[in-house]
Amino acid sequence: MRHSGDLPQAAAGLVGQLQARGPRIHCITNTVAQAYTANMLLAAGCVPSMTLSAEEIGGFVARADALLVNLGTFDLERREATGIAVAAAAEAGRPWVLDPVFVDRSASRAAFARTLVGRGPAVLRLNHAEFQALAGCEPTRAAAQDYARAHRLVVALSGATDLVTDGGRVATIANGHALMAKVTAMGCAGSALTAACLAVCDDAFEASAAALIALGIAGEIAAETAAGPGSFAIAIIDALAALDAPTVVARAKVSP
Amino acid sequence: MRHSGDLPQAAAGLVGQLQARGPRIHCITNTVAQAYTANMLLAAGCVPSMTLSAEEIGGFVARADALLVNLGTFDLERREATGIAVAAAAEAGRPWVLDPVFVDRSASRAAFARTLVGRGPAVLRLNHAEFQALAGCEPTRAAAQDYARAHRLVVALSGATDLVTDGGRVATIANGHALMAKVTAMGCAGSALTAACLAVCDDAFEASAAALIALGIAGEIAAETAAGPGSFAIAIIDALAALDAPTVVARAKVSP
Amino acid sequence: MRHSGDLPQAAAGLVGQLQARGPRIHCITNTVAQAYTANMLLAAGCVPSMTLSAEEIGGFVARADALLVNLGTFDLERREATGIAVAAAAEAGRPWVLDPVFVDRSASRAAFARTLVGRGPAVLRLNHAEFQALAGCEPTRAAAQDYARAHRLVVALSGATDLVTDGGRVATIANGHALMAKVTAMGCAGSALTAACLAVCDDAFEASAAALIALGIAGEIAAETAAGPGSFAIAIIDALAALDAPTVVARAKVSP
Repeated sequence: MRHSGDLPQAAAGLVGQLQARGPRIHCITNTVAQAYTANMLLAAGCVPSMTLSAEEIGGFVARADALLVNLGTFDLERREATGIAVAAAAEAGRPWVLDPVFVDRSASRAAFARTLVGRGPAVLRLNHAEFQALAGCEPTRAAAQDYARAHRLVVALSGATDLVTDGGRVATIANGHALMAKVTAMGCAGSALTAACLAVCDDAFEASAAALIALGIAGEIAAETAAGPGSFAIAIIDALAALDAPTVVARAKVSP
Repeated sequence: MRHSGDLPQAAAGLVGQLQARGPRIHCITNTVAQAYTANMLLAAGCVPSMTLSAEEIGGFVARADALLVNLGTFDLERREATGIAVAAAAEAGRPWVLDPVFVDRSASRAAFARTLVGRGPAVLRLNHAEFQALAGCEPTRAAAQDYARAHRLVVALSGATDLVTDGGRVATIANGHALMAKVTAMGCAGSALTAACLAVCDDAFEASAAALIALGIAGEIAAETAAGPGSFAIAIIDALAALDAPTVVARAKVSP
Repeated sequence: MRHSGDLPQAAAGLVGQLQARGPRIHCITNTVAQAYTANMLLAAGCVPSMTLSAEEIGGFVARADALLVNLGTFDLERREATGIAVAAAAEAGRPWVLDPVFVDRSASRAAFARTLVGRGPAVLRLNHAEFQALAGCEPTRAAAQDYARAHRLVVALSGATDLVTDGGRVATIANGHALMAKVTAMGCAGSALTAACLAVCDDAFEASAAALIALGIAGEIAAETAAGPGSFAIAIIDALAALDAPTVVARAKVSP
């Protein structure tokens, strides 16, 4: 078990492994986020797939290396697809990430997300408002740890500083840039990258931290040249594709 | 009531208010346009949401500050969502924009759009062919005024020169660039920006003109550096995010 | 009937005709690819439409100049829309392209694709794994020719080198760049461009080769300035919009 001091090295290693191994990531994600998520995964070295068809999603998930379940658009087809995909992931032993987008805005979505939490995601990736809606309390460090322990998953809480915990270990990550909040689907892309890291790393705590470190650093690099949120959204894809181990180690801002 | 001579100042003010107040805009829009529309709204300072789920769209609309209804892809789920959303907007007193995309190509879509016109949109934003399909006559200045008066809404007619009228007042706006017609969802983004301006301005005539002025100026600025329609689509987002009041006042081309 | 030596000239001519005539291309494509496909078609001079509504897709196809059927996301609505669209294309005499995305990953999708092959597409555009899944054999030159002859269509097989055949004639095209595989929907955009060329050229072999030559050259030009897959995806749209006949003739790499 690594401590947070090792996380930059771990992140650097995982970024390289994604490019070397090209894992398949199946994504149930909203139509707003699909193209951007796919391009981010391709930039990281992965092979994304996105089908929602009830007939075939089980097969796609079984042959993928990890699964993303994003609740961004909450239609019936996606809910049915999610049930099948999560069952297929469990049967095939594939790790999955739950991103409960906007559960703070919709009670029915929050109820659905709570059911999914009980079906064994490796990582729950969400923002402060979403945590509060799901957990029923402020997203403090202790509350995140309690939730992670109670539900046997990693909580990856995004914000000005990200917090990742498996209940025992905690890492706070200070990488990233304010422009990341001005690009739609950036959070979704972060969750997809978390699924990608899970595909090449058995330690969900390490995988979650690595994904947030890598995306945050790519955001910082992109912001150095971007003229606004439009060019930033493009530059962060370029930066992620070019990210190498020394850069990750040099720029990671991780604390326990 | 302002006259067209005041519109550049009004537009400058509204652009600033969007960035300062960050209104929530719920968008029923086609899957082609969703991501680009969301990024344009984020660049303007707004918080977009896009869900279509029948269970939750009413709640999203009630908590939003304005609604966009775009008919770009005309599936059953979107039509059902539209009915619920428009009812929720009426109940909560939220203004909404109707963008009857491609009604000139489909009789069933035109019939659906006519029903929606009767349900109280603040603004009808459309191009010449779409106006002709809905109104049954050429989109002259007088026809647009008549239609606006008869249906108690603002007509925002896009073209080489845009025309905005509430039946009484008329403004023509000569901002914009030919490359705007070479980017998919640019019209949809303009309608979304109109909804955004409605969220911070009670005068739908002024809000509509402001949105078209702002987007047109952003397009002109983007065209100064773009190498083609791909880089233009990105640069206009950057330009919109950076747009300030003096630039709007200096560059607005508005006539009565 | 032209030979492969004439194809660069033919491609140069078709690129110009798209810009001059602006054909309407109706696209049944997955939500991941819709926006990028539409922007690529706009850049090439075409007018894209994307509706899937059962009520209106027949009318859209009948008034379009060519149809694209892409199986990228395989939901029920798209399958129903496909049946109607293909019937409308047959009745109106419109040529269409079938892009059987990911048939190698899903037996039900492959079965659906085989049915569609029997309904008369002018072109079948696919990669090596997809060919193998459909045809049941390795995608050799001879196998592609046999398949094209047996099913009376053009096979356009993408890969490091593209191969196009109508059963008799064969062209191999060596244009393109490795970054094209790092952008989602690039293959879908290539299929859409093939449909566009079919709209202005009765010879499906020539149209298919022209589309792959044009997109490949645009990719090479984009790669000269791109900093990674994000900026490449944008630059290739700019390059396609700016592509002129002398560039096509000078850069085409076609062999029999």
